[in-house]
Amino acid sequence: MLFSSVSPIDSLEKVIMSNTFGTLFRVTSFGESHGPAVGVVIDGCPPGHFIDVLKIQAFLDRRRPGQNILTSPRKELDRIQCVSGLEDGVTLGTPITLLVENKDRKTEDYKQLENIFRPSHADYTTQSKFGLRSKSGGGRASARETLGRVAAASVAEQILTKLMPNFKVIAYVESIKNLRIPEQDPFSLCRESLCENWLVCPDEQVRLKMEELIIKVKNEGDSVGGVIRCFCLNPPVGLGEPVFDKLEADLAKAMMSLPATKGFEIGEGFSATEMLGSEHNDAYTMIQQRVRTKSNHSGGIQGGISNGEVIATRIAFKPVATIFKKQETVNNSKKELEFTPHSGRHDPCVLPRAVPIVEAMMLLVLMDHYLRQSQTKVCSGEYSKFE
Amino acid sequence: MLFSSVSPIDSLEKVIMSNTFGTLFRVTSFGESHGPAVGVVIDGCPPGHFIDVLKIQAFLDRRRPGQNILTSPRKELDRIQCVSGLEDGVTLGTPITLLVENKDRKTEDYKQLENIFRPSHADYTTQSKFGLRSKSGGGRASARETLGRVAAASVAEQILTKLMPNFKVIAYVESIKNLRIPEQDPFSLCRESLCENWLVCPDEQVRLKMEELIIKVKNEGDSVGGVIRCFCLNPPVGLGEPVFDKLEADLAKAMMSLPATKGFEIGEGFSATEMLGSEHNDAYTMIQQRVRTKSNHSGGIQGGISNGEVIATRIAFKPVATIFKKQETVNNSKKELEFTPHSGRHDPCVLPRAVPIVEAMMLLVLMDHYLRQSQTKVCSGEYSKFE
Amino acid sequence: MLFSSVSPIDSLEKVIMSNTFGTLFRVTSFGESHGPAVGVVIDGCPPGHFIDVLKIQAFLDRRRPGQNILTSPRKELDRIQCVSGLEDGVTLGTPITLLVENKDRKTEDYKQLENIFRPSHADYTTQSKFGLRSKSGGGRASARETLGRVAAASVAEQILTKLMPNFKVIAYVESIKNLRIPEQDPFSLCRESLCENWLVCPDEQVRLKMEELIIKVKNEGDSVGGVIRCFCLNPPVGLGEPVFDKLEADLAKAMMSLPATKGFEIGEGFSATEMLGSEHNDAYTMIQQRVRTKSNHSGGIQGGISNGEVIATRIAFKPVATIFKKQETVNNSKKELEFTPHSGRHDPCVLPRAVPIVEAMMLLVLMDHYLRQSQTKVCSGEYSKFE
Amino acid sequence: MLFSSVSPIDSLEKVIMSNTFGTLFRVTSFGESHGPAVGVVIDGCPPGHFIDVLKIQAFLDRRRPGQNILTSPRKELDRIQCVSGLEDGVTLGTPITLLVENKDRKTEDYKQLENIFRPSHADYTTQSKFGLRSKSGGGRASARETLGRVAAASVAEQILTKLMPNFKVIAYVESIKNLRIPEQDPFSLCRESLCENWLVCPDEQVRLKMEELIIKVKNEGDSVGGVIRCFCLNPPVGLGEPVFDKLEADLAKAMMSLPATKGFEIGEGFSATEMLGSEHNDAYTMIQQRVRTKSNHSGGIQGGISNGEVIATRIAFKPVATIFKKQETVNNSKKELEFTPHSGRHDPCVLPRAVPIVEAMMLLVLMDHYLRQSQTKVCSGEYSKFE
Repeated sequence: MLFSSVSPIDSLEKVIMSNTFGTLFRVTSFGESHGPAVGVVIDGCPPGHFIDVLKIQAFLDRRRPGQNILTSPRKELDRIQCVSGLEDGVTLGTPITLLVENKDRKTEDYKQLENIFRPSHADYTTQSKFGLRSKSGGGRASARETLGRVAAASVAEQILTKLMPNFKVIAYVESIKNLRIPEQDPFSLCRESLCENWLVCPDEQVRLKMEELIIKVKNEGDSVGGVIRCFCLNPPVGLGEPVFDKLEADLAKAMMSLPATKGFEIGEGFSATEMLGSEHNDAYTMIQQRVRTKSNHSGGIQGGISNGEVIATRIAFKPVATIFKKQETVNNSKKELEFTPHSGRHDPCVLPRAVPIVEAMMLLVLMDHYLRQSQTKVCSGEYSKFE
Repeated sequence: MLFSSVSPIDSLEKVIMSNTFGTLFRVTSFGESHGPAVGVVIDGCPPGHFIDVLKIQAFLDRRRPGQNILTSPRKELDRIQCVSGLEDGVTLGTPITLLVENKDRKTEDYKQLENIFRPSHADYTTQSKFGLRSKSGGGRASARETLGRVAAASVAEQILTKLMPNFKVIAYVESIKNLRIPEQDPFSLCRESLCENWLVCPDEQVRLKMEELIIKVKNEGDSVGGVIRCFCLNPPVGLGEPVFDKLEADLAKAMMSLPATKGFEIGEGFSATEMLGSEHNDAYTMIQQRVRTKSNHSGGIQGGISNGEVIATRIAFKPVATIFKKQETVNNSKKELEFTPHSGRHDPCVLPRAVPIVEAMMLLVLMDHYLRQSQTKVCSGEYSKFE
Repeated sequence: MLFSSVSPIDSLEKVIMSNTFGTLFRVTSFGESHGPAVGVVIDGCPPGHFIDVLKIQAFLDRRRPGQNILTSPRKELDRIQCVSGLEDGVTLGTPITLLVENKDRKTEDYKQLENIFRPSHADYTTQSKFGLRSKSGGGRASARETLGRVAAASVAEQILTKLMPNFKVIAYVESIKNLRIPEQDPFSLCRESLCENWLVCPDEQVRLKMEELIIKVKNEGDSVGGVIRCFCLNPPVGLGEPVFDKLEADLAKAMMSLPATKGFEIGEGFSATEMLGSEHNDAYTMIQQRVRTKSNHSGGIQGGISNGEVIATRIAFKPVATIFKKQETVNNSKKELEFTPHSGRHDPCVLPRAVPIVEAMMLLVLMDHYLRQSQTKVCSGEYSKFE
Repeated sequence: MLFSSVSPIDSLEKVIMSNTFGTLFRVTSFGESHGPAVGVVIDGCPPGHFIDVLKIQAFLDRRRPGQNILTSPRKELDRIQCVSGLEDGVTLGTPITLLVENKDRKTEDYKQLENIFRPSHADYTTQSKFGLRSKSGGGRASARETLGRVAAASVAEQILTKLMPNFKVIAYVESIKNLRIPEQDPFSLCRESLCENWLVCPDEQVRLKMEELIIKVKNEGDSVGGVIRCFCLNPPVGLGEPVFDKLEADLAKAMMSLPATKGFEIGEGFSATEMLGSEHNDAYTMIQQRVRTKSNHSGGIQGGISNGEVIATRIAFKPVATIFKKQETVNNSKKELEFTPHSGRHDPCVLPRAVPIVEAMMLLVLMDHYLRQSQTKVCSGEYSKFE
């Protein structure tokens, strides 16, 4: 065998890992999917805010697999633990460390795959870059890594909604394969009612067809992707920077850093390319003493900076790479081979479980830019500093 | 008047500007569109590389307006000057400062607009965030800011192509409004022949229709957007980081930090959402002793890390906000009003001039990740470190 | 009472905490001294290196209090746990999380002090900056925070000494109050023999006087400071950056970030100010085909970059602020008062326990600059890249 | 010859240059001492502040050589130019670029030295690290690099003193070789009167002896060092971070990043090591409703955070390495040789010219921490947030 995945190597591989996200609200993610724990350190969280750990737990529970017969049967007992940064539930302004132990580590599930580069997984590229890879499961490439992001986002959400009661981030499944629901009024959406159905899709008719499709695909050992729509309602005016750290640029990076994402849109997205300037421009008007736009083709951001209108994004998820069909590939010894995975704990469609993760990434970006913009205190989703 | 745009203010506005891009190849952009100069400081450029300043100039010239009767008549004499970092043309490993003086500063052109929030421009959001804005023109929001990015990218390209002779970044106009050309073979593309036509579009038939459309739109005082396709051929294996700094995430951020962009796709992009996993997965095979994929739906990146196949992206540009039709808006004093800009120096369609800028952003991302990955020296677009 | 130390506050305090040290070998420290745990996340550690957790434990044990009758009786069972980043003891190139649970949390010890600003402690400044402070003990200001730094430094040391067998970092107590030992030959020093005596001081005669002094000071309820000398033997040539991140600048910051430090010297330090240039300059010569200096007044660094000679530093520690004598101070309610702490678990002299922490900070700086300098692979303490 | 200093090299030297200082007020220095220009880009400067460019010029002029018969005769016409970031003198919140052209570039002066490693200069270490070095003069290692730092510091000072009228940073020469003046009352110092004498030393008697000494040393072709004392009066309470970015740690790094510095002290510095805790502790008391300390052995910083008392530092400068005596050294070809520089434009004592540079580094650190601490707006050197 060419590599033992965990033998020490002699040369110094200099890799800058980049497990930190954010400039002021800095979230450092750690943990392998089959190691002792996964978690997060939040540095830069302001002091003096009460954080309800049960709310973090509830946010995490939304991304838990095994919630219905369709999704993977892994019973992850994801109990969040807070190891630092809170005293009597109040942030001290010091690093907040949140972690979840990995209780259900069946590494033998992955024995079969140890030497194989699974198609469209991170196996080959990880091996090429690092010279080794975690023996079991996806290591850092697993979606389990996102647990820490969601935990950190819940802290952000609790602070943002306390300071701006009307501020809301909400996402849903807009399409699965070619089944797409009509455009929704974001102000009509409610996270509680969305979550009543495991598909997290507000259109009941299409949802039923989606369920049928997913069952069919699962039975065929195949997988399917789709689009998630994510909004921020009542954002403050003034978030985002004019040049490289435009708000849409940081949102794009955040979303495209999630596993399986292939596309990102703000406002009209690719449809904007088929409009005339006179159709796309959002005319300003005064409503209740505030500067508002009559339309919102821009998706709430102009010149990289939020204008107070709804921030509207769309994220494309490819079908997950784990399927239970015969596939051609190559192994560590560069031998070509065919393999058929025996069924493990994997979803045929991750979209529903990705909804809270998408919300989490938007929350992390908005919290970071909120801290970066001093005057947001007074532009609490209602009034910009300008007024 | 509510604001004098340049009066000093008393309170301390704490804004983290973020005019630096990149982690190791750090590009700091500076300059207002109507100030004395725009430019860039590159920190982290390796020492000992010969840089041809004429090649930087040539790259810059590609984004110059006024190259045909359609585009804006501003005669920018954009002579690049190198102020530091090179000695006898060789990089010293010290900061490289490149700048272009703004020779053609007709600030009176903007007098009419001083108090108006132009729809879908950065005027209102800049004023809200900073409490003031540059009196004339777009300040930092102008596309002129991208001059520095392009200059820095030319430095990166000269180093990358010396180290990896087959490495190539190339972009073209894929669609203007609803006029779209068929998918091109990226290996058939050549920057020189693409640039022979000002539209930078490889399909002659569609190109003629595009020209007609743009002339028509210009005559109506309107504007039009489109899609740019951008590839990297023969990239090294191993660029990108597994978690937040996935290569596609950094590309998305780079592209979405350009003015007027509304969407980003890697590989199949949104089309991937309509495929099955068994259709989308890229099977591995061995070709000439290298691990290759039979298809490239992933767009050259798996698990956030390049796999050596063509990196394929698509970027959506909205129609530019500057049009010469009557529009409703609001001014600094929050009065609603109508205005019709008298014709200034603006393009009805920025796509052709955006092509080199899109290439520049891809080059900056790839150079940065190249420096971040130690072993790329030996995976020079031909052989990955794995082999 | 003016503040309840942990009540939530309404306004948004925007504090950038900075719990991360290093540019490429990035060490994020977390944990309150009386919270559930303290620890560290190392991001940027190269993959493929075997790390012996027992060696980390041994390094940690050197800073443990309660090792002799003089030091504080707190029985810290500081068992290091590795939560991520290692598989079968080998670094994966992913974040390494190391933590130690706080087993011995007698917060009631601190009840007396809850409302008092102890002189020369962080109480008043922490309260002023954050608006609150940890109810018990020093929170992040406690020396217990340095546990994570030491754990991370042991990882660095294991990698550096594997790659450069002659590389060594070593420190000792040079003076306690006015008792100072003569200059030592750094190449004669050995960590094992130094650690045989709890005072970590190589001169036996002076050491006995130091012990007497410390016992006397302890009996008086007072405290005493001193100087630690720290060397790096056989460093590579080329570490450090020419401008802001000079090696001595980063060492100075590292050392001055330790609690109770008041001064830093490199090479001759303040004595250099009394020398002539002709006395201070280190003449170059050739020894065994290498460029060497005949003297080493520079302390191994010239122009901010290591020259391969011994890196020699000196760090001043003030007497610790915790004493058991009556003192004047002010409380949270701004009342002046006198108080006499009842004896807690504190050393009258932290110098011996600070020795491994000083070594740790030097190791963190050198590891970081080692990764920053590509060619150090070949200048392994024996041969510089130049040769 | 072994190296042509500027030949291109083939391999990719990966060096992270670090020409940026600060976290929020980020100063990027650029320029070689004999290149076209030196300068600085300030990113993160708040918008809306009036900056007087003449004040920047005046600050720069204080570090100009050639101000008396003793110092080097280089006639640097250091006219500061502002290239971006100001409009009508007001900061736009965008990057401020300030530069000075190098008018007086006699590179032939350095011809003699091209292949020689001057003792205790950066020649050898630069060559070893980068594989090449600037043909002439010190490149980035020249004190001329500090021009940009001083220009940026003047911007910081103008903002800080507008917001906090009593805030003041002031430095002076405390000793030259063994000639030391007595401790001064910092509140009695005035920059204007200090600058009346070129030695920038407040004690007339010792100053006369210093002048004699310097003349003598110059006549002998030798050089001499000394100590600079630097204070901040009326700083806000709350600057500095509790762990790595302690205020004294950042000050130490700032000062030790200056050429020729060998030591740093805060408060009592090394003298603190000879005091008892009961002598060193600073008792709190109430003065005019403010929490104050009765003594200030801590030097204005406790737990890494400013307490509002005078910040007191001391910086050791070695004698400059350029002397005009015969010295032994080695050249690029590793030949041992003797050389005697023929007299160039160099000072025998840089201390007086280093005074404004030391002030500049303190200003940059304080400005950065001021922006990092949100509540400093209300603790303007008079009242802490606590009150």
